[in-house]
Amino acid sequence: MIDTICALATAPGGALGIIRISGPQALEILSHVFTKSLTNAQPNTIHYGHIKDGDSIVDEVLVSVFRSPHSYTGEESAEISCHGSRYILNKVLELLIQHGCRMAGPGEFTQRAYLNGKMDLSQAEAVADLIASSNKASHDIALNQLRGYFSSELSRLREQLLKLTSLLELELDFSDHEDLEFADRSELLELTKTIDSHILRLAKSFETGQALKNGIPVAIVGKTNVGKSTLLNRLLRDDRAIVSDVHGTTRDTIEDTIDIQGITFRFIDTAGIRQTTDEVELIGITRTYSTIEKARIVLWLLDVAPSASELEDMQERCNDKSLIIIQNKIDKNAPLKIGASPDSSQDSVKQLQISAKQGQGIDALEQAIYEAAHIPELTESDIIVTSARQYQSLIHAHDNLTRVIAGLETGLSGDLISEDLNLVLDDLSDITGQGRIVPNEVLGNIFKNFCVGK
Amino acid sequence: MIDTICALATAPGGALGIIRISGPQALEILSHVFTKSLTNAQPNTIHYGHIKDGDSIVDEVLVSVFRSPHSYTGEESAEISCHGSRYILNKVLELLIQHGCRMAGPGEFTQRAYLNGKMDLSQAEAVADLIASSNKASHDIALNQLRGYFSSELSRLREQLLKLTSLLELELDFSDHEDLEFADRSELLELTKTIDSHILRLAKSFETGQALKNGIPVAIVGKTNVGKSTLLNRLLRDDRAIVSDVHGTTRDTIEDTIDIQGITFRFIDTAGIRQTTDEVELIGITRTYSTIEKARIVLWLLDVAPSASELEDMQERCNDKSLIIIQNKIDKNAPLKIGASPDSSQDSVKQLQISAKQGQGIDALEQAIYEAAHIPELTESDIIVTSARQYQSLIHAHDNLTRVIAGLETGLSGDLISEDLNLVLDDLSDITGQGRIVPNEVLGNIFKNFCVGK
Repeated sequence: MIDTICALATAPGGALGIIRISGPQALEILSHVFTKSLTNAQPNTIHYGHIKDGDSIVDEVLVSVFRSPHSYTGEESAEISCHGSRYILNKVLELLIQHGCRMAGPGEFTQRAYLNGKMDLSQAEAVADLIASSNKASHDIALNQLRGYFSSELSRLREQLLKLTSLLELELDFSDHEDLEFADRSELLELTKTIDSHILRLAKSFETGQALKNGIPVAIVGKTNVGKSTLLNRLLRDDRAIVSDVHGTTRDTIEDTIDIQGITFRFIDTAGIRQTTDEVELIGITRTYSTIEKARIVLWLLDVAPSASELEDMQERCNDKSLIIIQNKIDKNAPLKIGASPDSSQDSVKQLQISAKQGQGIDALEQAIYEAAHIPELTESDIIVTSARQYQSLIHAHDNLTRVIAGLETGLSGDLISEDLNLVLDDLSDITGQGRIVPNEVLGNIFKNFCVGK
Repeated sequence: MIDTICALATAPGGALGIIRISGPQALEILSHVFTKSLTNAQPNTIHYGHIKDGDSIVDEVLVSVFRSPHSYTGEESAEISCHGSRYILNKVLELLIQHGCRMAGPGEFTQRAYLNGKMDLSQAEAVADLIASSNKASHDIALNQLRGYFSSELSRLREQLLKLTSLLELELDFSDHEDLEFADRSELLELTKTIDSHILRLAKSFETGQALKNGIPVAIVGKTNVGKSTLLNRLLRDDRAIVSDVHGTTRDTIEDTIDIQGITFRFIDTAGIRQTTDEVELIGITRTYSTIEKARIVLWLLDVAPSASELEDMQERCNDKSLIIIQNKIDKNAPLKIGASPDSSQDSVKQLQISAKQGQGIDALEQAIYEAAHIPELTESDIIVTSARQYQSLIHAHDNLTRVIAGLETGLSGDLISEDLNLVLDDLSDITGQGRIVPNEVLGNIFKNFCVGK
């Protein structure tokens, strides 16, 4: 039997706190602790009253009632809007548990939404991404996925695969009539290759997806006193959020990221930059190398021209990255001539002049950082894969399709090819969790990273 | 003209975030960014739709609509329940501001509720207390005040004062008829003294109110290695909250408090206790003395009997506090005889045997700490003043009443006494802000400590 779950859906500490309840007994349990019975409440209505512990009042609240199936989970549900005090929120949860609710696990509301057919697994994952999104790019990707664009692309691919399978099976059924050719194998091959290229394109979007989701790693390197700390602060300074400003919270955790044109860039290893003491500089060169290693974009800050060997060394270390050579303190010094004859094949090396202190050249630098990320312009309907699980399934599907293609090319019999095609169908079903029983272990892995209350 | 305000009402970081809008244009502005027009929405209804920035979707949301005057502020209002992502919450606030909302100041929703007669000032202050409450006692006090118990007690006192004034004015009008005695002055005196004692009782509750609101300061003192750190951890260990457990947040800030029977006890100066290194011990005795100074309850931890002079010294330092002498390590050592002939007048000295390591005697210690706080048993209708502003007004009223009493006793003329009585009435009006224009400066002071969004 399905039980009724409850959880705090907002972060603790605000003016309001929302407690969510879902399950067959939701309104019955709530009615035990609320001023009036809600078991016959109309859907989508708001009710003012008290949460009561026996005779004593715990809080004045507003209860929003949602009736099955027209709720987030698809179940009978309610949301209690309480005053956001720790004591009250604890007490209300305690009372609900006393009267038969169970404390929800991470993502359990969304898991129920999936199990009740309100969304597929890729959409469920998008919910977590949407909540975690801190910039326009990751937000747009998650929202597109939540709105089902990925799901419909997958179901389009499934349809084509099913068509392919049925053509092959037709061939199989009449295989004793050697004079009949039901499926033109070269056409089948063409269709399979098209499907595979779509799947591969989706899989390849994962790299971009990861970068957009986690922020693109940027390293600032250069000698002591060249102005690394000043540059970092200059870049961080303008990036303010209303939400974090108002509450003065959680700023720390995103302190070393900036958003440029909706993309998040994450400065790595800035601890050493902030305290430019001699002691830190002692760790020096090894640390710089490992920072470069982890970065996708390297900002090399200079105030004197590097030697030819220094330049060559840096270019070599950055050969799979975007290197931006920046001359700082342009307000005091004349422009340098750097790398008079740079390796012309290394067109990823950009040169800029700035004054981190005065702010000159910072806009151009931000533009250069943005361009160095090589993020394709995203449109509303673009599908970007951000989940490692989905990526795995796509790669699996591609592997199986590669065998299908080889089979078609080598004239393998239709039944053997069909087998591989069915594996591809399974792989795509794994992504959405539709038309296939998803093991509890997989579900557990998907939802364990959700916050409680969603 | 009154403008329309908006703010985030929940803490950032949860699964959900609630954005609140209030003011004459609330539904009009919201309709500009929502899927459908809400200007004709029924009160207390919930609407599913998208928040849109032009053509692009920002979030799938639920909007709760409240119509004037049946809303928290008394104005047209709405609450938008968004996915709790920083990006989304910022974007929705930005859009609302673009379409004519103003970002609300701290407590501005509650201030509007006061200005629109939905609550008086003492109730408004109770809202902030309720949100800040972290234990049963401070919660109950705030809720009682929010429910208007304090307000009705004050209006009862006002009525009695008005009756007194009218009796005195009657006396005044007929003062040329020397043979008539309209008001029996000894009865008036009795009535005044009763009113004064009520007001004084309210004022005196402030000390308890402060202790309950901020937590009662407790010091743990004792020599190195006597087990102070173990005892502190033992006391803190059992005190867990569902809310903070689940989110793993904000635990730090309340780490050194425990709740015993609904009262919060705050351990002061525990930094030194936690790191029991020699270095810390060097600061030693001076620090201990100043910790005792700040405490209301002192836990003196021992494992050998103190000398007579040490005992005497400690008792002297704690003569206005509750001293609990605790013999630790009772699992290893025999019970000590401490202070064979203690000063019998000092009945606030309690002695206990515990093992902080094994947990023996901890329940008894918690009970002793609770009793040492001398908090009166609170009933549902008890009024406890927690606001310094309200306390000031009560003390003011008491001062003025003292002059009234002196006037009545010395046979001062009714018009002079009436003047003082009017001052008392003003003092009580200051508390609720009713029947009297409250200067903006006072309002500003009251609401500046609120969180934004309430």
